[in-house]
Amino acid sequence: MSDIKTTFITVEQMEAATDALLANGAKVGADSWQQRVKNQTPHCKFGEEGICCRICSMGPCRITPKAPRGICGCDADGIVARNYLRFTAGGAATHSDHGRSIAHTLYLAKEGGDYQVKDPEKLIRIAKEWGIETEGRDIYDLAHEVAETGLLEYGKPFGVQRFLKRAPEARQKIWHDQGIEPRAIDREVSQSLHMTHMGCSSLPEALVRQSLRAGLSDGWGGSMMGTEMSDILFGTPKPIDTTANIGVMEKDMVNIIVHGHDPSLSEMVVFYSQDPEMIAKAKAVGAKGINIAGVCCTANEVTMRHGIPMAGNFLQQENVVLTGACEAIVVDVQCIFPALGPLSKCFHTKFITTSPIAQMPDSEYIEFHEESAGENAKKIVSMAIENFKNRKPELVNIPDLKTNATVGYSTEAIKKCLDGVTNSHLDELGTTKPLIDCVKAGVLRGAVAMVGCNNPKVRPDTAHIELMKKLIANDIIVIVSGCSAQAAGKAGLMSKEAKELCGEGLKRVCELVDIPPILHMGSCVDISRMMILASDIAKDWGLDICQVPVVGCAPEWMSEKAVSIGNYVVATGIDTFLGVDPYTKGGPEVVNLLQGSIKDWVGANYTVELDIDKLGDLMIERIEEKRAALGI
Amino acid sequence: MSDIKTTFITVEQMEAATDALLANGAKVGADSWQQRVKNQTPHCKFGEEGICCRICSMGPCRITPKAPRGICGCDADGIVARNYLRFTAGGAATHSDHGRSIAHTLYLAKEGGDYQVKDPEKLIRIAKEWGIETEGRDIYDLAHEVAETGLLEYGKPFGVQRFLKRAPEARQKIWHDQGIEPRAIDREVSQSLHMTHMGCSSLPEALVRQSLRAGLSDGWGGSMMGTEMSDILFGTPKPIDTTANIGVMEKDMVNIIVHGHDPSLSEMVVFYSQDPEMIAKAKAVGAKGINIAGVCCTANEVTMRHGIPMAGNFLQQENVVLTGACEAIVVDVQCIFPALGPLSKCFHTKFITTSPIAQMPDSEYIEFHEESAGENAKKIVSMAIENFKNRKPELVNIPDLKTNATVGYSTEAIKKCLDGVTNSHLDELGTTKPLIDCVKAGVLRGAVAMVGCNNPKVRPDTAHIELMKKLIANDIIVIVSGCSAQAAGKAGLMSKEAKELCGEGLKRVCELVDIPPILHMGSCVDISRMMILASDIAKDWGLDICQVPVVGCAPEWMSEKAVSIGNYVVATGIDTFLGVDPYTKGGPEVVNLLQGSIKDWVGANYTVELDIDKLGDLMIERIEEKRAALGI
Repeated sequence: MSDIKTTFITVEQMEAATDALLANGAKVGADSWQQRVKNQTPHCKFGEEGICCRICSMGPCRITPKAPRGICGCDADGIVARNYLRFTAGGAATHSDHGRSIAHTLYLAKEGGDYQVKDPEKLIRIAKEWGIETEGRDIYDLAHEVAETGLLEYGKPFGVQRFLKRAPEARQKIWHDQGIEPRAIDREVSQSLHMTHMGCSSLPEALVRQSLRAGLSDGWGGSMMGTEMSDILFGTPKPIDTTANIGVMEKDMVNIIVHGHDPSLSEMVVFYSQDPEMIAKAKAVGAKGINIAGVCCTANEVTMRHGIPMAGNFLQQENVVLTGACEAIVVDVQCIFPALGPLSKCFHTKFITTSPIAQMPDSEYIEFHEESAGENAKKIVSMAIENFKNRKPELVNIPDLKTNATVGYSTEAIKKCLDGVTNSHLDELGTTKPLIDCVKAGVLRGAVAMVGCNNPKVRPDTAHIELMKKLIANDIIVIVSGCSAQAAGKAGLMSKEAKELCGEGLKRVCELVDIPPILHMGSCVDISRMMILASDIAKDWGLDICQVPVVGCAPEWMSEKAVSIGNYVVATGIDTFLGVDPYTKGGPEVVNLLQGSIKDWVGANYTVELDIDKLGDLMIERIEEKRAALGI
Repeated sequence: MSDIKTTFITVEQMEAATDALLANGAKVGADSWQQRVKNQTPHCKFGEEGICCRICSMGPCRITPKAPRGICGCDADGIVARNYLRFTAGGAATHSDHGRSIAHTLYLAKEGGDYQVKDPEKLIRIAKEWGIETEGRDIYDLAHEVAETGLLEYGKPFGVQRFLKRAPEARQKIWHDQGIEPRAIDREVSQSLHMTHMGCSSLPEALVRQSLRAGLSDGWGGSMMGTEMSDILFGTPKPIDTTANIGVMEKDMVNIIVHGHDPSLSEMVVFYSQDPEMIAKAKAVGAKGINIAGVCCTANEVTMRHGIPMAGNFLQQENVVLTGACEAIVVDVQCIFPALGPLSKCFHTKFITTSPIAQMPDSEYIEFHEESAGENAKKIVSMAIENFKNRKPELVNIPDLKTNATVGYSTEAIKKCLDGVTNSHLDELGTTKPLIDCVKAGVLRGAVAMVGCNNPKVRPDTAHIELMKKLIANDIIVIVSGCSAQAAGKAGLMSKEAKELCGEGLKRVCELVDIPPILHMGSCVDISRMMILASDIAKDWGLDICQVPVVGCAPEWMSEKAVSIGNYVVATGIDTFLGVDPYTKGGPEVVNLLQGSIKDWVGANYTVELDIDKLGDLMIERIEEKRAALGI
């Protein structure tokens, strides 16, 4: 890959590229999030502090010293806690509904169909885990039963989530004793709305407890379903090389950007973009071929399974259109700027929406169905190809920024890497023990799970990148997903060369195991992979998860999903560090719970620190505390 | 009942009583909703118009001429429509979760237990409707299977709501063709949150469509489940006499107020308040006995099955405490002022919360479980009795306002009344045909379903009462539920004497059928009864529901449930008239849909009119239009 600009790319370089793209946009009167942030600043203080309530139509009510209670009598803490639970419920519902969609796809998988079982081994493993008969069964029969069983996890009238049993027993006991074992996923969502309905709960403790439960229904329910069934359908990720940053777009090719979260669509689009018939079609319109790249979690999904390049993360989604070289931006669900509608109209770009869940003005809507997936995808790819001729050459500007990355570190892949340094004559294979040994020995101090979005409230990507650099320099290995993974990718930190930025210990591990110091674990639903990894480490170590020197961090988060994630990560026993406040400042009792006493419930809590450097110090401190407590 | 003050009570009389109670409160430094409304006025215009977005943490964003889009690029209509769908989802989840709770209670019903099957005929009818084998089965076996089948309506992976089949075929076809047939109830809730998550749907049409679907999952799903299974457990209501208004509280008795929505608790409290052992205990502390009365929908539930008096509706909940004669206010879920916590501390009143769904500060929490229901209820009644001695006589002030009411007009009861005027030799019994004949003949012009809450934005109860008077004077029969029913009750309009306020036609019908002109159909979940009644009328008449001269009205609504209700009433084909704006003014496209073009989808839409007299005129006009269209 001779066209790789540099090994590492700085935030300043990315910002310069963005400025050039915005100048491109200015030529055609394009709006931008940078401009909209200016228009929307300052934000409403009531909203930011969480003390605005619109839950019934008597209001809206806002808490002030003169008006310490809403019309119903709810106080600041009650309002903040209700808003917090609703925020969580929005995220849990969204993530989980993604999982449901994948389960439906699995239910429709068939021999020779658009969707097939690519990882029968995982299918059989989960079937056994769930007590489903596997012997002598047709693989698709089995897939359909597993899918239906999974779908019932959303709505079964009795019992708790099946995947909870994957956690260490000590953790399961905490969930049970604290009354936060999630029942049917959708039920936790509905109950969260019910509890926060006018005239229901206003006790912060009750609302925060349900936030943890709803979060768990996502992390150990819907998201885990999404991850596992995606692996069954599309293959469990293995290490694979790819490229990242806006320079992955190709000047002379038909550029198709897939964006969103659900891989069912993008897998098909990727497939047809590699179809000889389609490539011939592209050549016929004067292009050198078809280049497909991803944005947001859809990028993570297709890069970790096919090495498709990652064009960028959340706040870079407008940039791909601003290059003037994007024939189509094809989206499924979540984190898609409605701004792409009007923006695409300033260029030749086709903005193609495909999901009933995510319908937007100024888009071309090609409803995507599992049953006609191939046909839908073919139509989309053809539309992009036909659009190549409409490109305005004077508007084409692809910044020359591109890095290498090695991605696709599923839990299974990580264990396989560790097997490589295991003495197979003496030790058990397929465990996390080599990793634990490194941590015990102090070669690695611990691990940080870095996740989450971008948010204009933080200088984009800086927090992700600077924290990662700091952590790896301190011999802390970093596992990443979502937009955090892409920030790492864009900066070059997911390349194996990044070992040069590490402390001596981590560098040695990277060389020995042949991994980058920042391990790409996938999309945001794949934080469930991190939960399983943490859980397996705890089990292999004979600890509860909250004792392991690992913390979570979402320095630039913005979506409801992130709060749902935060809640299940904390409830899993992993201290979580946030760089953006979750609209709770106005409720001191809620702050005291989240950043304080929920530790008594689940052995972990939140730290909110807007000074990113300090946030890094606090994480390192926490990891060292955990080490000290273990006497290592 | 010699102590009935007058046949009719005016709003002015009620207001004078409230003033006296507030003066009582002032003595002990009590806060009040009247004061809090002052503190919270004026409301935030962005919130009121629906153009404030707090769905992600990049904001909050507010739409202004200078900032026409949020940071993600969503415009005013997108934000308004998302907020509207979320509002609906909150209501649908809440109502439906109530239904789920009842289904769980039915699942735990047993011979000789706290909960038993009181209407086996209805149980068997529903079992047959659902294709469940009934022959030769133990009634509790059957109950458990029906309950479990009902519970699965919340989460089944495939198919649509079972009760949809109750609607006329034309209506079912509309639901199908419009893509708004609700699937599993909780799934519609989760999908609504998903669609409104950051970066999903911003197309008003898609969001409004899902609002109708989520509403239908409530009205023809969760709420209907709540109603039907409550009837199975506690008996299907029949006409029964009771009393209403604050004067139902008894100076010399232990006053227990049940408040909320779910009858599982209140049925038990009522039972133990009539227990000789408990009455003896009350006498032992110097009381003449135990007086139990209800507030909000819990009142509706127990009045229509046991004739328990109704102390008041939503905005009267503080009044019961302000009498200084309330030993305990026992609450389950929904529409309970958190203000009752601090307010009860100003008096001797015990504020007893009982549900994990509705936990509030400054309350005594006695968690209610179906398995220990009797014990829980006994404890609550005992607590109230023991509290009698703490009453401060100088603070006791029970306004002398009390009316008569005849309540309990379930669909089944209405048909039975109609059978009374049917020639059983010639005509079929158990139909709505006599009613249809009256409408065809013009003796009755039509019907209005009056429902919904109080809202300080409307002078409390005036809209309910004045509209009802206007409608019955115009020979329009009124069916009521929820707080609207209680407004009618408090004013004396649910007494048979109210025929004197009717036009000649309606008066004649009231006399002939021996009914009041305002028919009490129950609590807010029981709006499902109205749907079934409208549906049966349409079927008996050979029409679709949207052709029948009936409209719905919620003149003082305030809760999310009301918007969910509005959506299913409209989607059922019944034009709906609102006296409070649903935070949509800032989205002209959304207003055009809701108050305009959704009529093309479902044959009905909304009218929002804050001038209550005009609202009445518009309803009468709409009814006459429907008559004209039918040529009657």
